Amino acid sequence: MALEQQLRVPGPTPLPQRVVRSASRPMINHRGPEFAELMSEVCSGLKTVLRTDNDVLLFPASGTGGMESAIVNLLSPGERALFLSVGSFGDRWVEMANIYGVDAVKLRAPSGEAIDPEDVERILAENPEIEKVFVTHNETSTGVTNDIPAIASVVKGRGKLLAVDSVSGASCIPLETDALGIDVVVTGSQKGWMAPPGLAMVAVSPAAYAAAEKAKLPRVYFDYHRERKFQANNQTYTTPPVSVMYAVQEGLRMILEEGVENVWARHARVGAMIRAGVEAAGLRLFAAAAHRSDTVTPIHNPAGTPEELSQLTGLLRTRYGLVLAGGQGDLKGRIFRIGHLGFIDEGAVYAILASLELALSERGLLSRVGLMVPAAQAAARGAAAPAETAGVR
Amino acid sequence: MALEQQLRVPGPTPLPQRVVRSASRPMINHRGPEFAELMSEVCSGLKTVLRTDNDVLLFPASGTGGMESAIVNLLSPGERALFLSVGSFGDRWVEMANIYGVDAVKLRAPSGEAIDPEDVERILAENPEIEKVFVTHNETSTGVTNDIPAIASVVKGRGKLLAVDSVSGASCIPLETDALGIDVVVTGSQKGWMAPPGLAMVAVSPAAYAAAEKAKLPRVYFDYHRERKFQANNQTYTTPPVSVMYAVQEGLRMILEEGVENVWARHARVGAMIRAGVEAAGLRLFAAAAHRSDTVTPIHNPAGTPEELSQLTGLLRTRYGLVLAGGQGDLKGRIFRIGHLGFIDEGAVYAILASLELALSERGLLSRVGLMVPAAQAAARGAAAPAETAGVR
Repeated sequence: MALEQQLRVPGPTPLPQRVVRSASRPMINHRGPEFAELMSEVCSGLKTVLRTDNDVLLFPASGTGGMESAIVNLLSPGERALFLSVGSFGDRWVEMANIYGVDAVKLRAPSGEAIDPEDVERILAENPEIEKVFVTHNETSTGVTNDIPAIASVVKGRGKLLAVDSVSGASCIPLETDALGIDVVVTGSQKGWMAPPGLAMVAVSPAAYAAAEKAKLPRVYFDYHRERKFQANNQTYTTPPVSVMYAVQEGLRMILEEGVENVWARHARVGAMIRAGVEAAGLRLFAAAAHRSDTVTPIHNPAGTPEELSQLTGLLRTRYGLVLAGGQGDLKGRIFRIGHLGFIDEGAVYAILASLELALSERGLLSRVGLMVPAAQAAARGAAAPAETAGVR
Repeated sequence: MALEQQLRVPGPTPLPQRVVRSASRPMINHRGPEFAELMSEVCSGLKTVLRTDNDVLLFPASGTGGMESAIVNLLSPGERALFLSVGSFGDRWVEMANIYGVDAVKLRAPSGEAIDPEDVERILAENPEIEKVFVTHNETSTGVTNDIPAIASVVKGRGKLLAVDSVSGASCIPLETDALGIDVVVTGSQKGWMAPPGLAMVAVSPAAYAAAEKAKLPRVYFDYHRERKFQANNQTYTTPPVSVMYAVQEGLRMILEEGVENVWARHARVGAMIRAGVEAAGLRLFAAAAHRSDTVTPIHNPAGTPEELSQLTGLLRTRYGLVLAGGQGDLKGRIFRIGHLGFIDEGAVYAILASLELALSERGLLSRVGLMVPAAQAAARGAAAPAETAGVR
């Protein structure tokens, strides 16, 4: 029995008590001095974590809203642009671009694999008219992390604009916005920032602002230049989600107290622990070995049919209080996913793995219990995982 | 000295403790069964309060986002449409429409006055190609409430679509969505719903859905048909602002426990009390007598210069903990505004008026103290206000 549900989907993240308390502060006037202080601290913290001196614009929106902002501010109808997709959220960006009349060239890696920067190089060479490239940093649906430094090197080497969807990556996985010359970074409050959903945060470079001046797609709500003018006075164009911003403020304080590199290292350690534990049970990881995400781990369905997988995750939810995610789109029924981003530590990993192992055993999918946590412990110590595995039937 | 700041701007509303506690519940999976229950209750409650059987779609956005949704779902580039504006937010709708390439016909009432339905009748007769009319229910910037039943009668009498911005009106002021045949109603969580900002709620009629099928403006994030498909399964297209939805759920419970008509009556009573108190001090109300809002009361600057007004509201904020709003746009420095919507009762009104009266006196703007609260008390009893007034210098 679990006293409290353990939410381990790839976002929303569970909320630290500090964040909950902070988000519960009384409402304030979003045109007053208290809000200006809040806004200033949030924007400053976001710049620090995103490693950028660019503006970080705030929109009352989900991450998808942030993604739409990049389309409508950077592009014009009929313009050819390159989209690098490794899963559902990359596909969503392309779908948006198509609806907005963009001539979207889509490079789609097979599910579970990453973008090959050489393909990007080739496509840009073949399509010199392409001026803007859109790529997913960390794909929530497939658990793939793209090699952004290598992709940025190709894209920026040719002087193109680069927009990165890092909704589920930023603050958890290294992303050196300015050092890599990334022009737009989109992220969302409910992921590594340890806050509830409702705030899209978008870092915008001077080159992106310049592109927005020429881009012809219509926009008001998500307009970068409009928002920039208000942000210069520590306000927002439209009423901001104040309580979510309180939460982001406190999440940022926690991140900065821990240290950005330490947060990255914690996610790398947690990711390695989850993968070691899962593999010790003989479960098969979905993402290709070199590109596995440190924030979400998709696992092949160990249960046979989609119905049996559903019974496994249902059992985890009802008996163990552990909420995992299923597959999205054509991966529904084929994988399940463990989210491990934001408010996650080693103790949480042990609880996840031990519960998963018991549920697997109870569903008759595991011949031996007691290997997953030791494997994770070994990974936490930086040691190799024990050789023996339980073997899924 | 105030132990806690009293936020009396026309939104965000202060938050009841019940709402704060509800919003602080642990995060849940927005694709899971707990969220489906939350979504179902919220949508059902919204329908009850908005007096409609239409879908009420939820978007992670401010009220402005909801306003943009009506533009992009109902209209096509070059289409002529009628916008009835009585202030800044009505003007904002027109500005949006212009940016989206709509041929917006704007009927603007002088600031402080309401739309004359006969003007609407005339414009529609002169422009038979106009199929959609956009109107503000309650204009936050001027404190004017339009006569929606009369306007709806004209617009629906001609078989046109009617979209109503009721961001600061709905749940506080009567709005009979279905009885009046209103096709789109836009509202926002931070107003009468007693929740933090972050959720736009949009009631959409079958005729509005049909219009959306033909409308050519591009949209993804705010697309009604896309959202409708997800809502049919008690989900949302994009990650919803879960904590704000918890808050709206609890705010709705409070509204339904009190009774919708009782909430309307409370706002009418509170509005009358505020106006009686303000006039007893000899202050001048900005909005025309027949159309004064029961959620926000703008008052002519009693202090002379904009700087002196700023000193008055600054004194209220720092010494009395009372946060009021200034004027917007060309009304900046000319008026100040008391918000009284959502979490507001008679006791709060007395505190507002007593503090305001002392501050006016302290700034040398009032010859006599002690008239404002008795006038409000009389209004609360339904009696006529005392005849004598203090007289502003």
